[in-house]
Amino acid sequence: MDVREDKYEKIVKLAKRRGFFWEAFEIYGGVSGFLDFGPLGVLLKRRIIDLWVDWFVKREGFVEVETPLINPEVVFEASGHLESFREPAFKCLKCGRRFRADHLIEEKLGLDSVEVEKMGLKELYDLVLDKGLKCPECGGELGEPYYFTTMFKTFIGPYAEDVGYGRPEAAQGMFLAFRRVLDLKRGKLPFAIAQVGKVLRNEISPRQGPIRLREFTIMELELFIDPEDVECPKISEVEDEVLRIVPGDVRAKGGEEPLELTVRESLDRGVVDMEWLAYFMARAKQFIRELGVPEESQRFIEKLPWERAHYSSQGFDQEILLERWGWVEVSGHNYRTDYDLRRHMEHSGVDMTVYKPLEKPIMVEKTQVKPVYEALRRDFGDEMGEVLKLIKSVKPEVLAENLAEKGFVRLGDFTVKPEHVRVEKITVEEKGKRFIPHVVEPSFGLERVVYSALEYAYTEREGRVVMSFPVSIAPIQVAVYPLVTKDGLPEKAWSVYRRLLDEGFEVYWDDSGSIGRRYVRSDEMGIPLALTVDYQTLKDDTVTLRDRDSWRQVRTPLAGIEDRLRIFFKGRISFEELGEPV
Amino acid sequence: MDVREDKYEKIVKLAKRRGFFWEAFEIYGGVSGFLDFGPLGVLLKRRIIDLWVDWFVKREGFVEVETPLINPEVVFEASGHLESFREPAFKCLKCGRRFRADHLIEEKLGLDSVEVEKMGLKELYDLVLDKGLKCPECGGELGEPYYFTTMFKTFIGPYAEDVGYGRPEAAQGMFLAFRRVLDLKRGKLPFAIAQVGKVLRNEISPRQGPIRLREFTIMELELFIDPEDVECPKISEVEDEVLRIVPGDVRAKGGEEPLELTVRESLDRGVVDMEWLAYFMARAKQFIRELGVPEESQRFIEKLPWERAHYSSQGFDQEILLERWGWVEVSGHNYRTDYDLRRHMEHSGVDMTVYKPLEKPIMVEKTQVKPVYEALRRDFGDEMGEVLKLIKSVKPEVLAENLAEKGFVRLGDFTVKPEHVRVEKITVEEKGKRFIPHVVEPSFGLERVVYSALEYAYTEREGRVVMSFPVSIAPIQVAVYPLVTKDGLPEKAWSVYRRLLDEGFEVYWDDSGSIGRRYVRSDEMGIPLALTVDYQTLKDDTVTLRDRDSWRQVRTPLAGIEDRLRIFFKGRISFEELGEPV
Repeated sequence: MDVREDKYEKIVKLAKRRGFFWEAFEIYGGVSGFLDFGPLGVLLKRRIIDLWVDWFVKREGFVEVETPLINPEVVFEASGHLESFREPAFKCLKCGRRFRADHLIEEKLGLDSVEVEKMGLKELYDLVLDKGLKCPECGGELGEPYYFTTMFKTFIGPYAEDVGYGRPEAAQGMFLAFRRVLDLKRGKLPFAIAQVGKVLRNEISPRQGPIRLREFTIMELELFIDPEDVECPKISEVEDEVLRIVPGDVRAKGGEEPLELTVRESLDRGVVDMEWLAYFMARAKQFIRELGVPEESQRFIEKLPWERAHYSSQGFDQEILLERWGWVEVSGHNYRTDYDLRRHMEHSGVDMTVYKPLEKPIMVEKTQVKPVYEALRRDFGDEMGEVLKLIKSVKPEVLAENLAEKGFVRLGDFTVKPEHVRVEKITVEEKGKRFIPHVVEPSFGLERVVYSALEYAYTEREGRVVMSFPVSIAPIQVAVYPLVTKDGLPEKAWSVYRRLLDEGFEVYWDDSGSIGRRYVRSDEMGIPLALTVDYQTLKDDTVTLRDRDSWRQVRTPLAGIEDRLRIFFKGRISFEELGEPV
Repeated sequence: MDVREDKYEKIVKLAKRRGFFWEAFEIYGGVSGFLDFGPLGVLLKRRIIDLWVDWFVKREGFVEVETPLINPEVVFEASGHLESFREPAFKCLKCGRRFRADHLIEEKLGLDSVEVEKMGLKELYDLVLDKGLKCPECGGELGEPYYFTTMFKTFIGPYAEDVGYGRPEAAQGMFLAFRRVLDLKRGKLPFAIAQVGKVLRNEISPRQGPIRLREFTIMELELFIDPEDVECPKISEVEDEVLRIVPGDVRAKGGEEPLELTVRESLDRGVVDMEWLAYFMARAKQFIRELGVPEESQRFIEKLPWERAHYSSQGFDQEILLERWGWVEVSGHNYRTDYDLRRHMEHSGVDMTVYKPLEKPIMVEKTQVKPVYEALRRDFGDEMGEVLKLIKSVKPEVLAENLAEKGFVRLGDFTVKPEHVRVEKITVEEKGKRFIPHVVEPSFGLERVVYSALEYAYTEREGRVVMSFPVSIAPIQVAVYPLVTKDGLPEKAWSVYRRLLDEGFEVYWDDSGSIGRRYVRSDEMGIPLALTVDYQTLKDDTVTLRDRDSWRQVRTPLAGIEDRLRIFFKGRISFEELGEPV
């Protein structure tokens, strides 16, 4: 093993050798930002997704949806992505090459990325002119910076008429599905809609392997709440969980030191604005810990106003410390307010409000507009019916205000004057009210989580690699070996293999090479248990189980083995409890 | 219930009411060809995927990969899709509207789609001129037809430089991953690579709800075999399975009547060319039957040469009879030969061959080219080294042939003449040979399978809907009800709900309305078992279980209930065996 390699290089090698992941399109030289997941990678991803769904959907009583990757343009007009999901770039006036403006300035001027991120196009260009920055490739003049959208654009239908984009987040699908799920929930809040699926981001120059991808998987959840009822009923379950948080005011002063606060303290001190936000942050911490990343390698940083997504009013990134890249975001926790539902309501005209009865009815003053039929008949004759319809279509308050201010209102082809209607103030009793729900969103980037799980599982022992995944996410659970390939051992081992497969375990068959070589392979694959069928098995129907991490062995009867394995993989018994020490 | 509605309309209504699926982007008026899957739809899809993976991957010892949706253009140049994944269209010269040419001609002239599918652009246009076909919208002249690609086009990177396409099939990802998986398999064939993932097809006018989608999920498997060793070792397991096949020669004569042949007969009579193709067809039939579609509602039709995909040498579509659309393809079974790997080898220059030792070595005559150093030094001087390298880079046979025909060969900037080399014929012993593997592919369209499962599960009983999914694919397994919401029954029921959740069951909690109304809901959702906690539960820790299909009830102790449920959902015991009749 080359000690000069960093963990990333070691994992990339292992990932190719054992089939976790590799660069996509590699026979064509690769395209950065795209990965292939191999057989073990697919299983590992699936385990982590299943665990996430179990934690964030099933145990919470939430639901999942699946919505399209390609969306018509109107969705991203409404969501604000067309306007905000973009990056600044320079084009060299001489060679025509283009560069991401913020990165160029950070690198060439050694400025802090937090500082540069705040800058507008003018400030970026001023710096270029002030400092005499040139094209890093040819030394030519840089043109004025401009924004490009980082969504993949395409056309829906073959006629290049309807613009569509690859979704950069799954969230919009949940907002569009909101009313349907509200019906399924019989109109009652709070509820959450989750989605696990692919998203597409047309990054300008992704160079960080699995960390910055153009196509990746998101695990996202939108919780819809009444903004007047923001308490999280389950907060007590996580109250004492300690979060390591770098608050915005600390970061704004250049600080990086996290506060260690319990969930309760973070809320009481106003570091986290909402109970639900803190609740999901605590669950996120527990979830990532479950994947093998200890809490001291996790932190939350509060996003500064200019770093936050356009829809967010408070946001935290959950970060994991990785050897090559330092602190890397694996999940984002945002309070999206009513931004998205309001925007979709405005753009579609479809009601996104929820009704709730008031505790006690209230009296509300309202404006009422009553038509004066004689005047209408006199002035509009046969068209009176149409004018009446138009009058009804306008909000009474708006009509009254316009008549008072301008002395008339244009409705379609007609001019309505004060004598045509009678405006009255009335007082009515209201028993309920309508509101647009607010949204709290935890959102995980799966491939970064997968890579983190690989990095934290990576250990070396006696000069070779052991992938010590927690048993709950090990891509393969049991390797089955016949000790030798004769005397009926393969047949017996095969029957054990099939039996475990039938019981729903992820099982690996290997009858090639010595048992020692097979252990080397299964340790690299991160298989927690290796089951060997030997001569004694034929006599007394017992097998040996060998532990990946301690390399210890126990002997256990085949009778009822599936039940013992099931509770072992649920973490309810230890390896030693699986049998008698050998 | 409106009896004039067909099953499709009934299912669409139910799908919205219970959250299986609905039209995507509906608040913006919808975009045809895109669906949202709701909470139950996601669970149903997941069950069917899990079952498919269990049948077609795990039990076969095959592996899964996950590769990108967006691929650079070169992939589809190599795969032939750029050239062949297209449809003919007319544009009206007057109003500018465009129409799919084959559909227009089928509809207007009442021609058979099989006939029209065979036609080239010229034949289509001749028909327009002969029959005086006009624009169906404005009556204007139709222009000459042209082809448009039905892949979604985009650009990778923000500079609109590198063209990419949404993949129309997952297969290419498996071909690109072939060498990696071959290494994992230590160079040994046969093996298969499977993938479940989204694909994108820019259909011109999709109008059939879940049947023709622009974005859908494919479950695809590529089996790589040695073309000299095409036997399927597991064929005996399915030999007696009866397949209903409409062979190509019957279809070519306009026939539709299927032959009923066992797998063995279909092979012996040459109806199916390859054992592996027949094997997967048999498994496909069993798989679809497992989802609730009886065998008489299934058939296989052989694709006629002009209907086959460009890569296929023999192909069958598995079809299911649906009430509204007749016979609909749910899976395709193609013998892709070495087409794809060969094309990628040609386009990338990367070796896609597999080595195999010969049973006994053979003697092979080969051409050998030896440099004549004096002549080379004389003519090329210091550049001789470079010329030598170039000579070595060319296949000896090619070099010899060119020298013999033209009297010289241009290599880079150099002209090599006969005097520069000595061409010799030699005889060598070969112990092995290299070949490009051949591919057999079963490929399932998941959303059509899901819709078929819904249609065949749909039953009406006493004027209401019961979704009688087979227990193995029921999206939710158990509904848990407290009989009343007082006297500690909800608390007890909730503990049962949590316990079943912990054990990995898909469980539904419902405490709203009478038990009767709750049964109505859970029957519509297709939940096989409803578990009710009543007053007796508090006394003796037993509960009632109610069967969705028979509406019968049994009483069963809570002790060990998870084990009984587990074997019930594996189909090993019947409902009656779950407890004592009530």
